[in-house]
Amino acid sequence: MMKKYIMTPGPTPISEEVLQEHGRPLMHHRSPEFSEIFTEATQKLKKLMDTQNDVFILTSSGTGGMEAAVTNAFSPGDKVLVASTGNFGNRFKKLSKMFGLELTAIDYEWGQAVNPEHIKQALENDSSIKGVMFQFSETSTGVINNAKAIGDIVKDYEAITVVDAISGLGASDFKTDAWNMDMVIGGSQKGVSAPTGAAFISVSQKAWKLIEKSSMPRFYFNLLDAREAASRKPPQTPWTPAISIIVAINKAMDIMLEEGLGQSFRRHRLLAQAIQRAAEKLGLKLLVEDPQARGHSVTAIRVPEGIDGKKLSSMMRTKHGVTIAGGQGKLKGKIFRIGHLGWFGMFDAIIAISSLEMALKALGYDLEVGAGVAEAQKVFYENNYFGH
Amino acid sequence: MMKKYIMTPGPTPISEEVLQEHGRPLMHHRSPEFSEIFTEATQKLKKLMDTQNDVFILTSSGTGGMEAAVTNAFSPGDKVLVASTGNFGNRFKKLSKMFGLELTAIDYEWGQAVNPEHIKQALENDSSIKGVMFQFSETSTGVINNAKAIGDIVKDYEAITVVDAISGLGASDFKTDAWNMDMVIGGSQKGVSAPTGAAFISVSQKAWKLIEKSSMPRFYFNLLDAREAASRKPPQTPWTPAISIIVAINKAMDIMLEEGLGQSFRRHRLLAQAIQRAAEKLGLKLLVEDPQARGHSVTAIRVPEGIDGKKLSSMMRTKHGVTIAGGQGKLKGKIFRIGHLGWFGMFDAIIAISSLEMALKALGYDLEVGAGVAEAQKVFYENNYFGH
Repeated sequence: MMKKYIMTPGPTPISEEVLQEHGRPLMHHRSPEFSEIFTEATQKLKKLMDTQNDVFILTSSGTGGMEAAVTNAFSPGDKVLVASTGNFGNRFKKLSKMFGLELTAIDYEWGQAVNPEHIKQALENDSSIKGVMFQFSETSTGVINNAKAIGDIVKDYEAITVVDAISGLGASDFKTDAWNMDMVIGGSQKGVSAPTGAAFISVSQKAWKLIEKSSMPRFYFNLLDAREAASRKPPQTPWTPAISIIVAINKAMDIMLEEGLGQSFRRHRLLAQAIQRAAEKLGLKLLVEDPQARGHSVTAIRVPEGIDGKKLSSMMRTKHGVTIAGGQGKLKGKIFRIGHLGWFGMFDAIIAISSLEMALKALGYDLEVGAGVAEAQKVFYENNYFGH
Repeated sequence: MMKKYIMTPGPTPISEEVLQEHGRPLMHHRSPEFSEIFTEATQKLKKLMDTQNDVFILTSSGTGGMEAAVTNAFSPGDKVLVASTGNFGNRFKKLSKMFGLELTAIDYEWGQAVNPEHIKQALENDSSIKGVMFQFSETSTGVINNAKAIGDIVKDYEAITVVDAISGLGASDFKTDAWNMDMVIGGSQKGVSAPTGAAFISVSQKAWKLIEKSSMPRFYFNLLDAREAASRKPPQTPWTPAISIIVAINKAMDIMLEEGLGQSFRRHRLLAQAIQRAAEKLGLKLLVEDPQARGHSVTAIRVPEGIDGKKLSSMMRTKHGVTIAGGQGKLKGKIFRIGHLGWFGMFDAIIAISSLEMALKALGYDLEVGAGVAEAQKVFYENNYFGH
């Protein structure tokens, strides 16, 4: 008997209610029943993204959503700016190069956030840049970027903002329209807490102008086809969609909207604080040094000197049933990441820290068992999270 | 109280066992548990495709799999030949044009099959053609193409075969290796009878040589990345896969392999015969006139004079709970299609014909209620399908 806990920044835990919806018999994707669910799910995702823009659900991973943004908004040879704060920022760079864009990259140390002033300088240096791409929440480091400040700058230029908000939506306040976010990408398996396999993307009027002019070859991810299909009565998708995942998204969004987005953001802020303060209490070092740059979806913690990071996560998984994530790219072996995102409550944070403490202790790290857990509890108690 | 029956050529019915697997809690996609399921599912799909070639599962609809074939195997400017027998043949043409290939098309009347001699002539006329694309089962018409004959021709040329077998696999005998099928595309929601949202594709050595040289921009569907990820220990996917759909495929393939592929082909052949003989008994005209060209996955039937096809399918859906498919493209309103594919048994064929009879009769078509059903029963009885 071993209960299992997914504590990664995607896939995130899925509630029993959502799993039940996900596992129910499928309706046909051209049936009125599915059209209604599809339309509802899209409307709820618009609320999550705080937008009046068009939103499309794609059958793909989040990377497919990123490809959709790059191949729809731009034409070969277009100048784009990527502000990269980690592995997923680098994915925007790879996509830009692969599809023949003229790339200017601003690379930050992994663990640091974008300095919006650098974007202003780059746009001042070259006002013909067509797009500014960045991560809202950089999943590989746990950094949150100041999307509002970036949007405030970019709105005065020709360029659009293309934002990977995949691991940020639902955890941190994000205002697509008020912040001038032109193309925003989300994923089913992050804050929404539905199964993996669907991405979604919002498109502003400013972005549509680029998309309509784009000469980039594209087919499966062509957003003009998605828009045409969505405009039919009843709305459709251009290709067969992942029906059971969209059904699950629709249910998962009910749960999130019932909690209330404001309360969801508060919960994630406290979850992050609890994990982060507990880690520091145990003498661990957070990858993200600037407290302002620490996101609310995932916390990256440096593997302490003398400890084998692989053994740590393997022990947590095999002995405790707790799955956390390792480092990606150049941080492999140097950090571990605890996701505290989506269907993740106060006691999940307690479990994460409890498992971490016992595994670190067993591997020879000097700590007082229970000290981190106590610190995490204090965060919830002091903030009156449970409304006593 | 209304029981519901999906009788479309995708999505197909899903068994309760597969739905239960689909709805169970998700494991992480980098966990040993998932790697094992992923590896098993891939091995079972190789059996389905009768191949030793590499097979990759993609998180997308079948169209994404078609795009993967076109963008991986070819480079802009490459000459390709598309033998189009319907809506999905035309999709290969659109993909070829979109991605800058030099297209030669052989277009057949919808309802007719490819004449392999035409392919031989085209390759003789221009031996620099890099790929020959066609449908094994053309879902929009129900035609089955003679893949073996085409493969026998193409193997002696430089070109590879690129085959959309999406609605044919599992229903009709298909030998990827023996027939020289270089890239074969399948879908989760057809013969396999798992939920929508995943495609799969096989790649021969001849195809790898083209893929390794291809200069086509591609990222999400890059099969070189898929091959690299699959070669890791344990095997992985380059991006987050649709975990719950792959879990469902793994279970669904157990059911199919337990029945035995030979028995599955026999079942589908008899299902097709039952539906087709019943329709003719009712005085209806099959779209595919040549009995040799009639596939085993879906049957297209002409809407009889004086009957409104939309009303027919709407009545079957709303009064009987039976969902069938209409015509696509230029056959919209002119035909209706009954899918008899995947988790579809003898009595499902009886239900399809029974519902069709009663709806046609109610709409004023002159028929003897029960005549079609009796004819369908005879097919199973005479062929001793149930082994009495």
